[in-house]
Amino acid sequence: MSIATPPDYRALDENTLADYLAGLPELAARLGGSPADWRVREVGDGNLNLVFILEGPAGDLCVKQALPYVRLVGESWPLPLERAFFEYEASVVQARHAQPWMPEIFHYDPALYLIVMERLSPHIIMRYGTIEGRIYPHFADHIGEYLANTLFFTSDFAMPAGDKKKLVARFCDNTELCKITEDLIFTDPYRESERNRWTSPQLDADAAAVRADGALKAAISELKQRFMSDTQALLHGDLHTGSIMVTEEETKVIDPEFAFYGPTGFDVGKLLGNLLLCYFSQAGHENPAGARDAYRNWLLDTAEAVWSGFESRFLELWENHRTGDAFPSDLFTGGEGERVFQACQKRFLRSVFVDSLGYAGASMIRRTLGLAHNADMERIEDPELRAACERLNLRLARELVVHRESFGEIADVTARARQLFEQWRAAARG
Amino acid sequence: MSIATPPDYRALDENTLADYLAGLPELAARLGGSPADWRVREVGDGNLNLVFILEGPAGDLCVKQALPYVRLVGESWPLPLERAFFEYEASVVQARHAQPWMPEIFHYDPALYLIVMERLSPHIIMRYGTIEGRIYPHFADHIGEYLANTLFFTSDFAMPAGDKKKLVARFCDNTELCKITEDLIFTDPYRESERNRWTSPQLDADAAAVRADGALKAAISELKQRFMSDTQALLHGDLHTGSIMVTEEETKVIDPEFAFYGPTGFDVGKLLGNLLLCYFSQAGHENPAGARDAYRNWLLDTAEAVWSGFESRFLELWENHRTGDAFPSDLFTGGEGERVFQACQKRFLRSVFVDSLGYAGASMIRRTLGLAHNADMERIEDPELRAACERLNLRLARELVVHRESFGEIADVTARARQLFEQWRAAARG
Repeated sequence: MSIATPPDYRALDENTLADYLAGLPELAARLGGSPADWRVREVGDGNLNLVFILEGPAGDLCVKQALPYVRLVGESWPLPLERAFFEYEASVVQARHAQPWMPEIFHYDPALYLIVMERLSPHIIMRYGTIEGRIYPHFADHIGEYLANTLFFTSDFAMPAGDKKKLVARFCDNTELCKITEDLIFTDPYRESERNRWTSPQLDADAAAVRADGALKAAISELKQRFMSDTQALLHGDLHTGSIMVTEEETKVIDPEFAFYGPTGFDVGKLLGNLLLCYFSQAGHENPAGARDAYRNWLLDTAEAVWSGFESRFLELWENHRTGDAFPSDLFTGGEGERVFQACQKRFLRSVFVDSLGYAGASMIRRTLGLAHNADMERIEDPELRAACERLNLRLARELVVHRESFGEIADVTARARQLFEQWRAAARG
Repeated sequence: MSIATPPDYRALDENTLADYLAGLPELAARLGGSPADWRVREVGDGNLNLVFILEGPAGDLCVKQALPYVRLVGESWPLPLERAFFEYEASVVQARHAQPWMPEIFHYDPALYLIVMERLSPHIIMRYGTIEGRIYPHFADHIGEYLANTLFFTSDFAMPAGDKKKLVARFCDNTELCKITEDLIFTDPYRESERNRWTSPQLDADAAAVRADGALKAAISELKQRFMSDTQALLHGDLHTGSIMVTEEETKVIDPEFAFYGPTGFDVGKLLGNLLLCYFSQAGHENPAGARDAYRNWLLDTAEAVWSGFESRFLELWENHRTGDAFPSDLFTGGEGERVFQACQKRFLRSVFVDSLGYAGASMIRRTLGLAHNADMERIEDPELRAACERLNLRLARELVVHRESFGEIADVTARARQLFEQWRAAARG
């Protein structure tokens, strides 16, 4: 391996992983039997890491190990192993507040940069479910609560200033994964970059228009600057439908290796953006045309419910856990104080809403013009149809980034998405 | 000493300090001769630390040592010695960009929490000069440049993201001094607190009105939350006229022990607030009435020039040093790009202006109703006259905090200060 790694680090394979776990009695007991009885598979289909599933007579485990480079690209793009540490640290912090929506973590090995966690089964990556048009009736409730709990309890509203500053400092070291976000989301799609790709030649003009769009570049740069500067809450940092595993009953958020203190709206927005992109992709997955109309409605209803659920849960937590140093409760006593405090809450949530729309749009653009795309669109085989879906996605995304202040409520966003799609469908039908 | 301190720490006195410096040949050489030739005086009149002046045959030195408690209050208010470390660290960072406006640092002792620096002479604390009505013709130019250089070069506009995050993390540990700001500036004056004091009984009703002012408490809490969360730039953290030493020719900023990554407008605003408070205090120092009219104009001109100087220098630096990860220059190329970039700069500077007014007002209120007051007002012996000056100060301060968005430019602020004073003077004359 050409990239220098710490002396005790080695990338495991199916055999060495079994030997390793055999040496950890508590974990071996979860699998049951002996290593000879275990089935071990490397299943990582993500961009960055090794992921193993172990099945034993008594139970299963999932093991995630960081590689010293971006798996998707290879050794030419080194990436610090320490991201496993930040994933573990973030999981520990978030699990205090959001355990029901996360896999249980059993073990962290700081020398191997390896996390042993609950194997989620029969959960699937949500994105593959939404591509197939599956409905997850509890998803919006679950994820709204996950968002509110993780983002509220790590903020200055809930935490004493000193404790929060310690966490901010710890996650500041997750620099290189932040840099990926800064470059791939907020920068590359807006300039010439070898890392960019899009449905070509269909979207060549659209991509060029984005690179020439001054108002868009100004707005995206403001969102980037806030991402780099405003330490409102401990973010998951990469909360898209590919970081969520679901069944009809359960919702589990995985992979918080991009964890970082940033603006509250970043996590909320990235997820909303993925739902909206998924909405625009449906025309590429339905047969006959219109077959996904009900599903399209579910996706927009879900986007609305994610925001509303997040907002109401966040407000409820803030009302009942005023334990942080920001907006100290003894400044807002009595009926008048309560009224003033509620106005402050409303202003803060409004700013989070506006941020969320900006980050939603940013996410929708990078998934269309940047390095990493979503299977939602990639799996549409007809490039003309895919480009048509992507163009609608880009159109709403630009409005969300540039005109984010002009949306009054989440229903305005979903209505605009619906309008763009219906106009396109009407025109396509002639 | 009842507060536990590290084993190698001891508070020095005149004799032990001379012995200590005799053991450091480079420093001893600066003084010249032998310890018997040195004159050592403890001169600390600040709130927190020991400060010694050493005079030798060849030159002078200033030595600042942290005590493990707030000197002003005593051992009942412990304060971490590490603030000396943060002062030293901040001095090193700032000196890269603003050396001409800072004392030179010669030595830091991490065991004794002690800094040896240039002795500034014949400089005096600026506040005592402004109380006497002295004009510092270069002050605004110097401090505008100090502010722009320190705040720009530590921001995401100038620094690569990873380097900046390292600094943010380091200064996050300066928690307890941040907590002083959070409590004494943004919280205590707005609630009942044993630490509050004011000119009583004259301002009793004014203090009660502040504690009952919902709009003011909402606005101050928003400013507090941003102070706690937005890591725009490495702040001095306590930049008032008592932290600046001056001659007619020179301006030197001292005491950055509150250094912390926070909103750019905090340093600018605290200084503007001190100049405005100084303006309102002049009626208590003039004899006959009106004798300070020209000086009053100089103070307001200076406040205007501080803002304008900061703003134009910041823009100039940003134009010529686009070395940070925020607003990357390759997104804004060509004539159209330049125009868009300038609009972004303008919006950012506008937000700093608005923040600055809020923090100016916050500083004016805490110096009137909180624990730490300014000699500008304290030295007015007649309590009726002092209260009258303080009431004008409170009145503008409230407008700056609550209606900070409504001021278009710095001249609107100084015009309003002048209007409030002239209305009061006209009424007082009958």
